[in-house]
Order: sequence, then C-alpha cells, then structure tokens
Amino acid sequence: MAKTMKAAVVRAFGKPLAIEEVPIPTPGPGEVLVRIMSTGVCHTDLHAADGDWPVKPTPPFIPGHEGAGIVAALGAGVTGLKEGDAVGIAWLHDACGHCEHCTTGWETLCETQNDSGYSVNGSFAEYAIGNAAYVGRLPDKVNFGEMAPILCAGVTTYKGIKETEARPGEWLAISGIGGLGHVAIQYAKAMGLHVVAIDVAEDKLALARAMGAEVTVNARDKDAAAQVVKQTGGGAHGVLVTAVSPAAFSQSLNMVRRKGTISLVGLPPGDFATPIFDVVLKRITIRGSIVGTRKDLAEAIQFANEGKVKAHIHRRKLDDINDVFAGLKAGTVDGRIVMDIG
Amino acid sequence: MAKTMKAAVVRAFGKPLAIEEVPIPTPGPGEVLVRIMSTGVCHTDLHAADGDWPVKPTPPFIPGHEGAGIVAALGAGVTGLKEGDAVGIAWLHDACGHCEHCTTGWETLCETQNDSGYSVNGSFAEYAIGNAAYVGRLPDKVNFGEMAPILCAGVTTYKGIKETEARPGEWLAISGIGGLGHVAIQYAKAMGLHVVAIDVAEDKLALARAMGAEVTVNARDKDAAAQVVKQTGGGAHGVLVTAVSPAAFSQSLNMVRRKGTISLVGLPPGDFATPIFDVVLKRITIRGSIVGTRKDLAEAIQFANEGKVKAHIHRRKLDDINDVFAGLKAGTVDGRIVMDIG
Amino acid sequence: MAKTMKAAVVRAFGKPLAIEEVPIPTPGPGEVLVRIMSTGVCHTDLHAADGDWPVKPTPPFIPGHEGAGIVAALGAGVTGLKEGDAVGIAWLHDACGHCEHCTTGWETLCETQNDSGYSVNGSFAEYAIGNAAYVGRLPDKVNFGEMAPILCAGVTTYKGIKETEARPGEWLAISGIGGLGHVAIQYAKAMGLHVVAIDVAEDKLALARAMGAEVTVNARDKDAAAQVVKQTGGGAHGVLVTAVSPAAFSQSLNMVRRKGTISLVGLPPGDFATPIFDVVLKRITIRGSIVGTRKDLAEAIQFANEGKVKAHIHRRKLDDINDVFAGLKAGTVDGRIVMDIG
Amino acid sequence: MAKTMKAAVVRAFGKPLAIEEVPIPTPGPGEVLVRIMSTGVCHTDLHAADGDWPVKPTPPFIPGHEGAGIVAALGAGVTGLKEGDAVGIAWLHDACGHCEHCTTGWETLCETQNDSGYSVNGSFAEYAIGNAAYVGRLPDKVNFGEMAPILCAGVTTYKGIKETEARPGEWLAISGIGGLGHVAIQYAKAMGLHVVAIDVAEDKLALARAMGAEVTVNARDKDAAAQVVKQTGGGAHGVLVTAVSPAAFSQSLNMVRRKGTISLVGLPPGDFATPIFDVVLKRITIRGSIVGTRKDLAEAIQFANEGKVKAHIHRRKLDDINDVFAGLKAGTVDGRIVMDIG
Repeated sequence: MAKTMKAAVVRAFGKPLAIEEVPIPTPGPGEVLVRIMSTGVCHTDLHAADGDWPVKPTPPFIPGHEGAGIVAALGAGVTGLKEGDAVGIAWLHDACGHCEHCTTGWETLCETQNDSGYSVNGSFAEYAIGNAAYVGRLPDKVNFGEMAPILCAGVTTYKGIKETEARPGEWLAISGIGGLGHVAIQYAKAMGLHVVAIDVAEDKLALARAMGAEVTVNARDKDAAAQVVKQTGGGAHGVLVTAVSPAAFSQSLNMVRRKGTISLVGLPPGDFATPIFDVVLKRITIRGSIVGTRKDLAEAIQFANEGKVKAHIHRRKLDDINDVFAGLKAGTVDGRIVMDIG
Repeated sequence: MAKTMKAAVVRAFGKPLAIEEVPIPTPGPGEVLVRIMSTGVCHTDLHAADGDWPVKPTPPFIPGHEGAGIVAALGAGVTGLKEGDAVGIAWLHDACGHCEHCTTGWETLCETQNDSGYSVNGSFAEYAIGNAAYVGRLPDKVNFGEMAPILCAGVTTYKGIKETEARPGEWLAISGIGGLGHVAIQYAKAMGLHVVAIDVAEDKLALARAMGAEVTVNARDKDAAAQVVKQTGGGAHGVLVTAVSPAAFSQSLNMVRRKGTISLVGLPPGDFATPIFDVVLKRITIRGSIVGTRKDLAEAIQFANEGKVKAHIHRRKLDDINDVFAGLKAGTVDGRIVMDIG
Repeated sequence: MAKTMKAAVVRAFGKPLAIEEVPIPTPGPGEVLVRIMSTGVCHTDLHAADGDWPVKPTPPFIPGHEGAGIVAALGAGVTGLKEGDAVGIAWLHDACGHCEHCTTGWETLCETQNDSGYSVNGSFAEYAIGNAAYVGRLPDKVNFGEMAPILCAGVTTYKGIKETEARPGEWLAISGIGGLGHVAIQYAKAMGLHVVAIDVAEDKLALARAMGAEVTVNARDKDAAAQVVKQTGGGAHGVLVTAVSPAAFSQSLNMVRRKGTISLVGLPPGDFATPIFDVVLKRITIRGSIVGTRKDLAEAIQFANEGKVKAHIHRRKLDDINDVFAGLKAGTVDGRIVMDIG
Repeated sequence: MAKTMKAAVVRAFGKPLAIEEVPIPTPGPGEVLVRIMSTGVCHTDLHAADGDWPVKPTPPFIPGHEGAGIVAALGAGVTGLKEGDAVGIAWLHDACGHCEHCTTGWETLCETQNDSGYSVNGSFAEYAIGNAAYVGRLPDKVNFGEMAPILCAGVTTYKGIKETEARPGEWLAISGIGGLGHVAIQYAKAMGLHVVAIDVAEDKLALARAMGAEVTVNARDKDAAAQVVKQTGGGAHGVLVTAVSPAAFSQSLNMVRRKGTISLVGLPPGDFATPIFDVVLKRITIRGSIVGTRKDLAEAIQFANEGKVKAHIHRRKLDDINDVFAGLKAGTVDGRIVMDIG
C-alpha cells in the first residue's frame, strides 16, 4: 500500500485549497482507515475553508464530511467492521460516549465531539480516518456517489423532518428547494407526508413538483404564507426551513398551523425576529435541528438504499474542488456536487 | 332574586371603568349563571380595557376571567352541574367542540373560541355566565379568594411548565418572579423540579427562595446566564419566561441546556431576536404557551386544593377596580389582586 | 317526508332480526337525522344481536355503526352541519364532553358514552340519529358504499397502527388479514411502514402481497415468529393483532422487536398468557386499542378519500341482514359486507 | 498492592458460595478496577447462584451487581475517571455501543451486553472490574452502604415509575412493598406523584404510610382493586408491579385507570393471564421494564444523593453471604441487605 495520498488541504482561511500528497494516516484504537470513493461537497466545507464561523478549525486541515468509501485498515480493538466494508464518513466523527447527551441517543449534542473535516481531517482525500463506532454503515453494492450526499444533506433533512413531529397524512412545508430541500421532499413523501414546497425560483418549484410536492408556492408572492395556509387547510403541521435567509425563517411563522412546529436546519448568519404574540397564541414550536444521530443516519441511509430518496448529483473530481467552491459561492449549483476519488 | 347586579363596565377604551347596575344575564342552553364570590385581576384585563391588542373587544363589556363563585341558575340541557356547585370562570369561555383542536384536547387553540371578559362578559360583576362544559370545577369548601388567581395565573404557569417537558429532578429556570412567577415556583416544586429563579429585584428573589427556589440570580448581573448554566450543571432543562420583556426572552436562550425548551407565557409587545446558530447547534426548542386546557385547569386546581400552591393575594373590592388597574400599570402590585364581590 | 322507515330490528338476542317499518326518529338538541345510504356490517353487530358480551344492549334495538349517509334534518342548536352534508354514523355516538377523557381527546374512553347500534339505535335502517358533534364528516361526492367500512374497520386499524408508535421506515407486523387486516395493510403502507402480514390462509397472504406487504408468513408454520424476526432484521417494531384468537396474541410476543409495541384491536373472548420474563427483558409494550377518536376518524377518512385505502367490499341489501350474519358466523365473508339502503 | 482478594464464588449451582482468595483482576482497555466498599444483595444474585433462569451464568463466577466502591486502577485508554473516584458496579456491565438500542439510549436492550455478577464477575469481592463507560458515577463523600441498593433496586424502581408515564399530581399504585417497593414509594413522592401502596402484610403497609403513601390497601381484601379505584377517583394512572406473583400482575389490571399503564419490574416465573376485553376497552398499556440505562442510573443516584430516597438497609459482612441468601429464600429480609467489604 502507498504511503501517501492525494488530498485537498486548507492551508489558510479564504485561500484556494492545495491539492497535495500527504501521508496516509494510521488508524488508532477504535478507528478505521477509509478509502474514499466519493465525497459530497457541503456549504459547511466552505465555512470551514473560509473560517467564518464563530468556532474555527485549525489549518492545515482537510475538509469533507460526506465521504463514502471502503474500510481499508482497522485500528486496534475494532469490532463489528472488517476490511472491505462500505462505510460513510459523516459530520459527527466521534463523541465522548458517556455524557448525558451521548447516553440518551443525542451524541450530536456532545460538548466534546469531533467533527469530520473541521476538528479532525475529513473526506477530501484518498483516505480518511473514521471512528468505528460512528461511521455510517453502508449497504453492500452501494453506489458511492449517490450515497455520499445522504451522509449530510440526507440525514440533516431527514432528522429535521422528524423534529417537526408531523405525522403521516399531515402537511409539511419545505422552505428552500436547493441541495437540502430537494432531498427533503423525497424523505417527506416516503414518510407519508403531504408536501408544500416554497422557493423563490420557479425552476426549483418545478423540480419540487416533479419530486412529489402536491403544492408549490413562490416565496416572493406577497401572499405566499396565506397561500400555504389556504392550500393546507389551516397551515402546515410542520415547516422545515432549509433556506439560508432570516426572511425565510420569519415567513415560516405565518405558514405554520396552530400547534405546529418549525424546524430549522439552515445556518444563515444572524438573528431572526420572533413575534411573541403569535408564537404564544398559536402555541407554535420553533426548534433547531443539527445533522442527525447515528440512528438517524442509519435510517436515512435505509430510505436511500430502498430507492425512495436519491440526491440530484453532479460528478466532479477532487482536483476541481476550488472550482466547485466557486460555484457554491455563486449559487449556481443545482442539487449536490459529488467528487469521485476512488 | 334581583333583576340587576353591580358590574365594572368598560364603556370606552382607555377610560376608567364604570361601576354600574346592569341586568343579570340569563343562561342560555348549556350555560350556567355564576354568582361571583371573588375575582382576580390580570394584566390581560388591562389590555382588554385599553383595547391595545391587535384583536379588540367591543365596548361596552365587563372584563374579568379569574372568577370564582357558585352556580346560581342552570340553562337548558345542563348536566353535571347543579345550583350551589362551586365553579370558576376562566379565560376560555367556550369553544366549538369539534374542530381539530377541540377534539384533541387543545380547545385553547380553537379558532372560534370565546374568551371571558373579552369576547363575552366576564367576572367583574356580581354574576357572570359560564358555559357548563368549560367552567372550572372547584372543590367544596373552597376559599374563593385564594382560588381565583389559580384560574388564570395558576393554570397559565402550570401549563407553561408542562410545556417545557422538564421532568422531576431536572432544573427549571423561571424568569420573572411576579404575579405569575411566584406561583410558578410552587408548581415547579410540587412537580419535583429544581428551580432557579431570575428577576431584577432582590426582594422578588428573596420571595423566590422562601418559596423553594434552590438558586436565585439577578437578571441584571452581566453574567446572569452564565451563573444559571454553572449552578445547574450545564443550563436549565426548561425555562419558563413570565417576564414581559423581549430582553428576558433573549437572555433565556443563554440559560437553557442543550436540547432544552423555553416556554413563553408572557405577552410583551414586539419581537425578540432569535440567534439561529445557537438554536440549531444546541437543538433548542422555543414554544409559546397560552393559558391551559380544561384538563390543565383541573390539575392546576387540584394542586392548589392540596395546599401545594397558594397565590400571594391582596383583597380589594369591585369598587376599587380603577385603583387596582392604576397599580398594575405602575407595577406596584406585589403578587395578585383579588376583588371580593359575593 | 315519510313518517316511517324500514329497519332491521333485534327483538330478542340470538333470534333473526326483523325487517320492520318503524317511526323515523326526530333529532333532539344537538342531533341530526341521517338518511343512511350504505352501512357496513361488523362482527360487533353480531355480538350486539346475540347479546354475548358482558355489557348488553336492550332489545328492541337497531344495530349498525358503519353508516354513511346524508344529513336529512337538524335538531335544535346544531351548528357546523347543514342538510345535504355527507356524514358517517360511527361506533361512538356521543360522549359526555367534559370528563378527563373527553377533554384530552380520548372520548372513546368516556365512561358515559353511547355507542351506535348498541346503547342507541344504529344504521341498519333508512334513517338514524347522529350527534352533530360526533358524526364523521365525509367529503362531497363520497362513494357511500366504499366509505362505510372506513367508519369502523378503517379507523380501528388506523388507530391501532398509530398506537404501536411504529415510525415511517420501520416494520409493522399485521396478524390476521381479514376484514380489518386487509385495510390495515393499506394504512400502514400509506404511513410509510414496511409490512409483514401473518395469516393461516394462503389466499389471504396472497391478498396481503397484492396490497403491498413486503413479507408474508403463514401463522401455522412452526417457525412463523422466527421468520418474522429474521425477515425484519430483529423483529417487528409494531405488531397489530386483528386476529380473534388468543393464540395469535401469544404468537405476536415472539415477533416483536425489543422495545416494540403490540397493539390489540380484536376482541376474542378470554385471556391470553403473557410471559413475564420476555416482556420485562425485552421491554415489550402491550396495548389495547379501541376504535378511534373523532380526530382519528377524520384522518382515516382522509386517507380513504385520497384513494390510499379502499376496503374490499361486497354489496348487499338491508333485507339480507340475516344471511349476512350467517356468513359472518360461518367465517365465509371475504373483506367487508356493505348493505346499500339509500 | 495485594495480588489476591477475598471473594464469594459460585462453584456449582445451588451450592453454598465459597469464600476464597482469588487473584485481583487486571482492568483491560477501557476498564477500571474498583475496590468494593459495600455491595447490596439482590434476588437476581440468588437466581445466578442457583442457575434457575433460562440463560445461565458459567461457574465458577462471582455474583453481585450493587457494588459501591472506589476506582483503584485504570485500564488503557480510560478517560473521565481517575483513581479515587467513587463509582458503582451496576447490572449492566457493558454493551456494544453501536447497535440500534445502544445508539438510542436503550443500552439495557443491547443483545450483546454483559451483566455484572452474571456473564462477568461481580461485586461480591474486594475488587471488581467495571467498564469506564458504564460504571455509575457516585458523588464525593458518598455513604457507600446506603448508595449500594440504589445501583439496582433504586434505578429499577425509578425507571419502572418513569415507564408508567404517570405525571406529577397523578396516582401511582405500587404493588409489593418489599426491597423494591419501599424505595419506589420514595421515588414516586419525590417525583410529585400520589401513591397508593398494596401489599399482603400490614407491617409493610404501615411502612408505606410512613414513607409517604397517601393510601394503603391490603392485597388480600376481596375488594382490594375496587378500593384502589375508589380512593384514586377512577383508578391509578400508573401501576408499578414489584410483587413477584402472577396474581399481583392480574390484580393490577383491575386497579389501573382507563388509558393507564402497568409497569412490570418483578421477574416471577411463568405467565399471567391478560384479559383481552378489558385491555382493549380501557386502552390499558402493559409494559416490561428492565433495570435502567446509564442516564436513569445517574438520575436515580441524584435523587438519593439529595436525600430524597434512602433504602432501608441491614449491614452484614461478605462472610455472611450464605446466611443472607438463606434469609432471602425464606422471605425474612426486611428492606435490603448490604454487605460491607472495604
């Protein structure tokens, strides 16, 4: 086996990533070395590379947290995995395992977690380290490229939908039909929900309809929220906000049914104005949702493996990473970019 | 029986109430006539009299929705109540009974509800009409004056605490130790919760300690939120915001534990700024809570009847209403004002 | 309008029903007169006519609680319904409206409820009385015959599935693919569940597959439970027992996953043996489920109206009732019998 | 440090335990060596020593799973614990950490778990091995003897109460006021519940009243269940069955309120007869509950540490184990036996 691997490395915030040969890492106790076959590219990778979030990674580092690949080597004491198994490197790299969050199935809230491509090296490389207890288990004969976006975009929207507590037969409004939203529609339909899709772009709304949304509303319409209320017979039971604008957050408050829940998964900078009177009188619940736990990930993968959810992807190469980032910044990406590596 | 009764009537918004003799109303089908013994006075009554909420009552009308009294006459078809029964006129006067909210135990969200002292006449009078299916059932030998505030202040805080989903042994932070907050502490203790009380006034914090709060924090301290986090070992599992200031709402976001819930029961005008990043990363839930259902009310009454909760009250007369309102506006009321009528 | 109507009347337990002309009833306050178009026939009607349950109806009476029809007249004080509206007479005729069950959305547990075709006259007649607050609201242009079975078979299985708390993507085992089970499969699929169907008859299992069950198992196979465990990767998350045999109840305990829930909707006479060790070590939940609330009914109707659930029915006439009962007793009924009346 | 330790060893099922000098074990990766100060004795230890459960341990082995002690040495890779920390050896020794149960906070259901004193050596010795991620964290200055029973009797009843889903202000019936039941009463009171205690022995009922039970009922009274229903105004919302007799299980079905939950924590051999009609019509939930998770244990310990729960204990020595077992078999033990070792 080779000693070095190709990787896309952030050497300094805000600079182009360097495509370099770096040493292949060695898995420690409880870890596995994963040969990356395909990796998705997420807005979070861009935030990592730009260092524009409050808590920053430390260059040099390798971004990437939608890495689908194959176990290439096992660290000491690993059980339940063997070389050749298909696994996924997701955002949650590892967590402490014994805090109140870890012991209640909420390891995504562990205060000492490590995150792939952020606090530890990620999947923009030929190999990456995963923690055997936290990597996603992928099915045999998986299509790595198609599965990669499920590891973050998929599980994040799936979990966000669960967090609305909308039940089969009820209405889910999905605000923002981009990389997350178009996947969310498919999960919602597979979960027995009715879907109303909201976006500013008519082509996105057409895509939403094609994916099963019963109702679409242009967010720029003055009466957009009123349309949602009318078409859903009183407002959506759940609202999933994937749009990265505070305006979309505020608009969602007028779309939600009494006793409904708004689930936030996007991470735009800043605050949004919450109208106290409405929230109280309508008993509205506003809830943040952050990626998903290992169980959520296993479920999200299963829906995809059954063919019920399929991300709309464009395939690129690792060498294209700076160009891909440019596209993300420009907002010209349609669906999800996946870089084929292995 | 007399034909007329004394009542405090709003003739025009923002004007002093008129103490008048008006006809005693006749209970219609399903209704009961209640002889009011005592009635609490709530900030909402002030909003009604001032007509300063978006949806306004129509003068002339009689405010009041914490009316404890005795059934004096039955309308047609009333079952389950008889003359002489002790009952309470609460905020929810009646609801449709068959909408999706009414049929799921959330009649407080019914879009065609009537509210006592707002859309129908209330308890600032010697008699008031109640709906037999909605009046609170009070125990025999009830102390009307002490029970009156339970009908709104009591049930509102009790429900608000339930809505935080904090469980026995966990921490509840109560922001604002006034008419609502001092009752909330008692409910929280009776529910097995640990309590941290937050207020700007040291005498309120002393009262909080006397009522069982294990920890008190002055909201004006720069590090108030940090103190709550430290003293509760990571933040409060639930936060009940009774304070009527957007600042208190925002502060509560820094006091809550990861995965915790903030329950809003106060109704200050305006918006509060919700920081998206924190809400998402910590999976915080923000939830409005509006009074309580009939079941909540029955439970709130039971806790009071068992002596576990007792509002701190000052007794006045119906003739004092304009003076009482002045005190509420000036913020000089300590605990709850109850007007003895019967 | 005529003064009399044709009805099937139980004059004495265990005797053939009499087809008679009886007075058309007059709706009292809050009630509606419903012109029955079609009515389903349920095993419960047979129990009513035979008087073989612990609590018995009082002859003479008219059975029937799957009555789909049209509002023909309104009693005093009815709101929210008008003549010509399509409605359904379901099992729960009315309830007290203010007990702890009624006020929490569990009116099916009200201890003073009336039940259609049991404690009050039901739908085996040209007209029946419904309570305006409790009749099911049917869509315009409803197919009465197809909707009738939803009013009991539909809502009962739908509620029973909800009570298992199985979530989309999880496995539901349905034990018994008869009048209830074949409808249950369709609800389960519409709710995003995976279905394994269990029955003793191969033709029922073939029907189950046709309706979407991914896996079928013959209950007579020695290793039937083991097959379910294997095919579902550890046992079903929820088990719905519609089979009317204690043996099916016991078998279900070996099919359920750890932490799973068994929901009982059938009402066979007698007890079933519950093995304490297994229930404790696997943290199994066993739960009875009785028809459904008004909200459950509205949801069950909506699924049917969207075409996602359709009972397999055979159409008969009211005059055929004794023959229909004979078929039910003999176990020769395939799907559900609906008598067209209007 | 010594090389050997005193231990009570099961050499053959059904024979007296041998008090022997055996090698002090060495903690492996992720493990800690615990110096046992006190250990409780539980009926399960008796089942282990007698080998009378379906799945049996393999002699020779050391029983014991209520071991309170001090970390004496750390295995490789242990974080979050240091020598001198007070910890508890509880029933759940370790679990796989990545199955569907482990990742959802239900590690007690892990199919590859190890159990202390059963599949691995336990606390009837001067030292025992604990898994760092699973040992209970005890407070500084803990009273080891008083805390020991919390590690199994405490957490088992606490969890069992949680599993009834009874809320503060509601009624919990506790059937069986022995080693588990007398602790359960204290947890229930600390959780804000009303308690009715049921037992066959009047002295146990007197103890129950002393510990806060509002109502006591002798299980031998013909109308015992009816008394519970009457005194609780309709039946207990939750029933915790600690009694080890199928008769107590069956009786509990007549004590529970409509929509109530019966939680089973005792493990008597055999089945109990479940009446289908009642369970369905009253929508009763029957649920097994097995010890508690790490989070449950932490909570159970906290209640005890706050002085809200205190087991009634008798202190013995390790050498007394065979005499202690004889007392357990004879049913002459009052409260809980704790053997002081360290």
